[in-house]
Amino acid sequence: MEETFVPFQGIKNDLDGRLKCYKQDWTGGFRAGFRILAPTTYIFFASAIPVISFGEQLERNTEGALTAVQTLASTAICGIIHSIIGGQPLLILGVAEPTVLMYTFMYNFAKQRPELGHNLFLAWTGWVCVWTAALLFLLAILGACSIINRFTRVAGELFGLLIAMLFMQQAIRGLVDEFRIPERADARLIEFIPSWRFANGMFALVLSFGLLLTGLKSRKARSWRYGSGWIRSLIADYGVPLMVLVWTAVSYAPASTVPKGIPRRLVSPNPWSPGAYENWTVIKDMLNVPILFIFGAFVPATMIAVLYYFDHSVASQLAQQKEFNLRKPPSFHYDLLLLGFLTLLCGLLGIPPSNGVIPQSPMHTKSLATLKHQLLRNRLVETARESMKMNSSLGQLYGNMQEAYQQMQTPLVHQVPASDRGLKELKESTVQLASSMGNIDAPVDESIFDVEKEIDDLLPIEVKEQRVSNLLQSCMVGGCVAAMPALKLIPTSVLWGYFAFMAIESLPGNQFWERILLLFTAPSRRFKVLEDYHATFVETVPFKTIATFTLFQTTYLLICFGITWIPIAGLLFPLMIMLLVPVRQYILPKFFKGVHLQDLDAAEYEEAPAIPFNYPQEGEFGARTSTADAGEILDEVITRSRGEIRRTCSSRVTSTTVTPSRDGRSPRVSINAYSPRVNELRALHSPRSAAREPFSPMAPSSLGKSPRK
Amino acid sequence: MEETFVPFQGIKNDLDGRLKCYKQDWTGGFRAGFRILAPTTYIFFASAIPVISFGEQLERNTEGALTAVQTLASTAICGIIHSIIGGQPLLILGVAEPTVLMYTFMYNFAKQRPELGHNLFLAWTGWVCVWTAALLFLLAILGACSIINRFTRVAGELFGLLIAMLFMQQAIRGLVDEFRIPERADARLIEFIPSWRFANGMFALVLSFGLLLTGLKSRKARSWRYGSGWIRSLIADYGVPLMVLVWTAVSYAPASTVPKGIPRRLVSPNPWSPGAYENWTVIKDMLNVPILFIFGAFVPATMIAVLYYFDHSVASQLAQQKEFNLRKPPSFHYDLLLLGFLTLLCGLLGIPPSNGVIPQSPMHTKSLATLKHQLLRNRLVETARESMKMNSSLGQLYGNMQEAYQQMQTPLVHQVPASDRGLKELKESTVQLASSMGNIDAPVDESIFDVEKEIDDLLPIEVKEQRVSNLLQSCMVGGCVAAMPALKLIPTSVLWGYFAFMAIESLPGNQFWERILLLFTAPSRRFKVLEDYHATFVETVPFKTIATFTLFQTTYLLICFGITWIPIAGLLFPLMIMLLVPVRQYILPKFFKGVHLQDLDAAEYEEAPAIPFNYPQEGEFGARTSTADAGEILDEVITRSRGEIRRTCSSRVTSTTVTPSRDGRSPRVSINAYSPRVNELRALHSPRSAAREPFSPMAPSSLGKSPRK
Repeated sequence: MEETFVPFQGIKNDLDGRLKCYKQDWTGGFRAGFRILAPTTYIFFASAIPVISFGEQLERNTEGALTAVQTLASTAICGIIHSIIGGQPLLILGVAEPTVLMYTFMYNFAKQRPELGHNLFLAWTGWVCVWTAALLFLLAILGACSIINRFTRVAGELFGLLIAMLFMQQAIRGLVDEFRIPERADARLIEFIPSWRFANGMFALVLSFGLLLTGLKSRKARSWRYGSGWIRSLIADYGVPLMVLVWTAVSYAPASTVPKGIPRRLVSPNPWSPGAYENWTVIKDMLNVPILFIFGAFVPATMIAVLYYFDHSVASQLAQQKEFNLRKPPSFHYDLLLLGFLTLLCGLLGIPPSNGVIPQSPMHTKSLATLKHQLLRNRLVETARESMKMNSSLGQLYGNMQEAYQQMQTPLVHQVPASDRGLKELKESTVQLASSMGNIDAPVDESIFDVEKEIDDLLPIEVKEQRVSNLLQSCMVGGCVAAMPALKLIPTSVLWGYFAFMAIESLPGNQFWERILLLFTAPSRRFKVLEDYHATFVETVPFKTIATFTLFQTTYLLICFGITWIPIAGLLFPLMIMLLVPVRQYILPKFFKGVHLQDLDAAEYEEAPAIPFNYPQEGEFGARTSTADAGEILDEVITRSRGEIRRTCSSRVTSTTVTPSRDGRSPRVSINAYSPRVNELRALHSPRSAAREPFSPMAPSSLGKSPRK
Repeated sequence: MEETFVPFQGIKNDLDGRLKCYKQDWTGGFRAGFRILAPTTYIFFASAIPVISFGEQLERNTEGALTAVQTLASTAICGIIHSIIGGQPLLILGVAEPTVLMYTFMYNFAKQRPELGHNLFLAWTGWVCVWTAALLFLLAILGACSIINRFTRVAGELFGLLIAMLFMQQAIRGLVDEFRIPERADARLIEFIPSWRFANGMFALVLSFGLLLTGLKSRKARSWRYGSGWIRSLIADYGVPLMVLVWTAVSYAPASTVPKGIPRRLVSPNPWSPGAYENWTVIKDMLNVPILFIFGAFVPATMIAVLYYFDHSVASQLAQQKEFNLRKPPSFHYDLLLLGFLTLLCGLLGIPPSNGVIPQSPMHTKSLATLKHQLLRNRLVETARESMKMNSSLGQLYGNMQEAYQQMQTPLVHQVPASDRGLKELKESTVQLASSMGNIDAPVDESIFDVEKEIDDLLPIEVKEQRVSNLLQSCMVGGCVAAMPALKLIPTSVLWGYFAFMAIESLPGNQFWERILLLFTAPSRRFKVLEDYHATFVETVPFKTIATFTLFQTTYLLICFGITWIPIAGLLFPLMIMLLVPVRQYILPKFFKGVHLQDLDAAEYEEAPAIPFNYPQEGEFGARTSTADAGEILDEVITRSRGEIRRTCSSRVTSTTVTPSRDGRSPRVSINAYSPRVNELRALHSPRSAAREPFSPMAPSSLGKSPRK
């Protein structure tokens, strides 16, 4: 994206781009049929559950001024509007942890001021939102988003990890509180006598760890060896929601032997209960706010504006990673403008505003990639089967399949579809296989051409880009407001488990996290990193440098985390993160070699193929997809997808470009151009490490010898 | 082993064989130094913990006539004697679940007879032991053990699985009881009010699952990617005992907030507490037993004799699987004779007798294999390093290493050491590697010859056969009697977790179990079984037959399990298992093809190499060891080692031999002789499945093409 600061230019481009595919956004979605429900429910839970418990958190922190009803309402309203008139429908909006922190800080400030106090708090936040909106408009119009590429890994991943830490903190704090008497609760109730409190705490441990562990397992269901295919994919698609239900059911198992309050469940007023509506009329109080505070509201407003500008853009960025081969254009400027309006709306309604959220947004894209894969797969398998019935030869078979494939392509392709390669490979492998069986011209049958496996292995990653899933999930979130009584059946401990689950789900693929792990990897095992797809820096940057860089980043992260703990000054933590951008650009280069910096912290997310031993070109996408079973492909991509695109430019090229490239599409150079260091590495580790693959009877062949020779 | 029934012949052979290596049994053990403590503690916990809680179980079932003190004493005494004058020192003795069942049945019988009652129960069991001993002598002298080979998988594995079920049952029952008021406990105690009982139950869940999960994880520590090598192997060696300590410590964390009785801990009288000694003088009561019952004792005696004959022999068989490449002879007849004496001794002391136990005995051998591997490894690495210092070439290096290796061999080798192949491969691979680096004659250095990895990969599996570990662990068990106060700190829930752990540890490698899993494997995933080492039957027997056979076996298992629930008749369950031997020999052949039977249920434990794709010969041991990192090799061997030896005779050969071969050393035929069916299978699945290996950048090469071509 070129950096143009011509007013309205960015917004105009975004609109032009998105309008072209607006119709298809809907038609495509509806054509997917009921299958769209898998990603929808997945994301619905991922965005509803945190919003609910943030609501609970807010209720405690704001003494009831804001509750789950308001957070849910905000998420629903903003989500619905964004999914309909928003630019990038992959972006999920919601009330995020940072917003909760901000509102907590503001409440603590407000209640200390007699002029404001509890009553005018919402009115005052109204003004904050007005200012925030104004700032966001300004940023959007002036095209601030065109510097999006300067938000390098350092900033993005640090923020991602900060969010993960906040989620984990919430989970742990929540679990600890299960052993305590909750604030504003009647301490004389039976369930608060020591024995029941202890029992409740232990029960909470069981429930939350139960959810966490089973949830993580269920995500891998596709690669399970047991159970028939459809059960496996059902579990993989709906596993987490399913587990929430299961563990909620479990929580009722001992109902007969325990008092009603055990285990503790969600507390939130029903939307129709008195008082739940006060905030909707906040707009008429806004003029009662003293003029001084109206202007004072500008201070928190700047913070929130900075936060949203960053958070919204990064979330959008992560939802549109190159790896997903998106076909439709991004829309940073326009979405920021819309965010401004939404913030204004929420402010006037007296509900906390929503913005693009991590990790839900990337999770959304991932689940849609899974969906698309299944759709493509079924269609192709079908076609293949049909043409087999007609005894067509491999040639024809391939023809038909390619045809069917093309029909399913999204009309406007704004980048080369990796898919063709996939299909060509399919052809080659099968032809070669057939000839090896000595019947190249004979009609094909399942015995030599196991359709399902073939196709699973060779389909490229694509995403079902549409607005339906986002709209549906927002509506379901809205439905939660009505379904509050049902939600109150969920034990809080299950929520804590879910928080931990989300924190953990967001880690893989975060290179900052992977570098931290690298620090703890035994030197003798580091070669293992090279066996898998991995970032270039592992090969090109000396370990010492990696370590220093990671330590710096970690300290910075801990500082940011620490700041969120400071009562009022905590308001400033968004600044710390924005500060990273200049720090990265002007200060870090003083301490690290430009070459290393670029590899450690590329402007776009880059990844090198595992060093390919005999067939360098196999380092490509084709090889990648053919290294795993249907489910595994996606699981792998999904687990490492938080911003990695394959990077095939040779390290030498990297090592000569000193300034961080502003775009990731580096020239495709054959792997043989790898830097000497890499070649050496390969010579050193490859055969051994290959020979060390678990369950890889292939591997020893790389030694090119037999023990009996 | 040929079937000779000449009296005393078998015993004589055994003694001759073992006496040859008796001295080495000790010297070898002491030379291992402090490292011997790893397997010792591992087995100590594995045999002490069950014995303790069997003791608790007995105390409940026999109203205090027998307690943990007696079971521990029996295990210690028998263990010490066996480890010193026993034949096969790999065999672990202990009071086993079947014995507990038998004693429970006998107690229920005795207390109903006024002539016996509680008081004469032990005296009567004394007589039972006398008869049992007599029968065991008979069996030993007449060489009954020479038909050991007729105890086919069907019987052995069914018994193994039955034991696992009994362990699991104990674990579950124990956990459920944590929610209940224990029998013979004062129900008015505070910890038995509903709230504390519930709390206790939940706490128990946390503790037992904590131990189970962490225990299972720690066993895999060697293959972890994080943490330095020595930490990893420390955890892998002492992980389980460590976890017992950890979770016992955890159980004290809330000590301040909970009443003393929570969580529940071991109950057992201290050996010095009054009454704990009554039983030692049981011998003088034996004459008070009415003559009728003295002879009546013959009935249970036969059952126990049958049980011990089978249990002892199978345990010994499993501890000496071919796969471990043991160098020292077995000793079935003599050990049975000794068992007779031990039973007599225990009977007269009024303590329940011990016999060879599953899964501890095979666990013992496994841990000693790990030990031996480490010893060899360190020695070779050392040698290699030294000769590198002296800039010796690869040739010399190899020479020195082989020399060092030979020095470490146990003197009497009664089977070809697979090791030489291992070392030859080491040579080839390194030479080839070096030449590829173009410096075959140059002095070697770490850069091209990463000693540790090389050696780890190429060392064969060997076992440190000695008596020290067995003696030490028996003494430690004896120490437990004195350490009873310390043992009482362990929460019962940790024991239940440990029971589950042992049940699960005993499953992998049990082909019966693996066949059950195969029934649940999705047809589309069955090919995955072929990728790994697997039993021949998977390729040679039609799935339908496998299913029928497995279902038959499962029903039989469930019947045996059911019988153990019947009050008195349960006494007969050993018969059911012995019955399997004739059933297998005369009845099954009527329903299954001989060929299939042999593959499904070979007389000795046999396994086929995974179908090797490009390099058939790599299917050999060399390849096996080079498919994984040090830890992984062992972990893999260990996890699949409950009775699998590699089997390299072609399936065609199998398919033509109709009678079950009495020995597993089938002719080594090149893999190319594989049956057509297998070739087809290979053609069908190999490249794909290989291409599907996780983390296998090698794999795509098997497709022999590049996507860009």
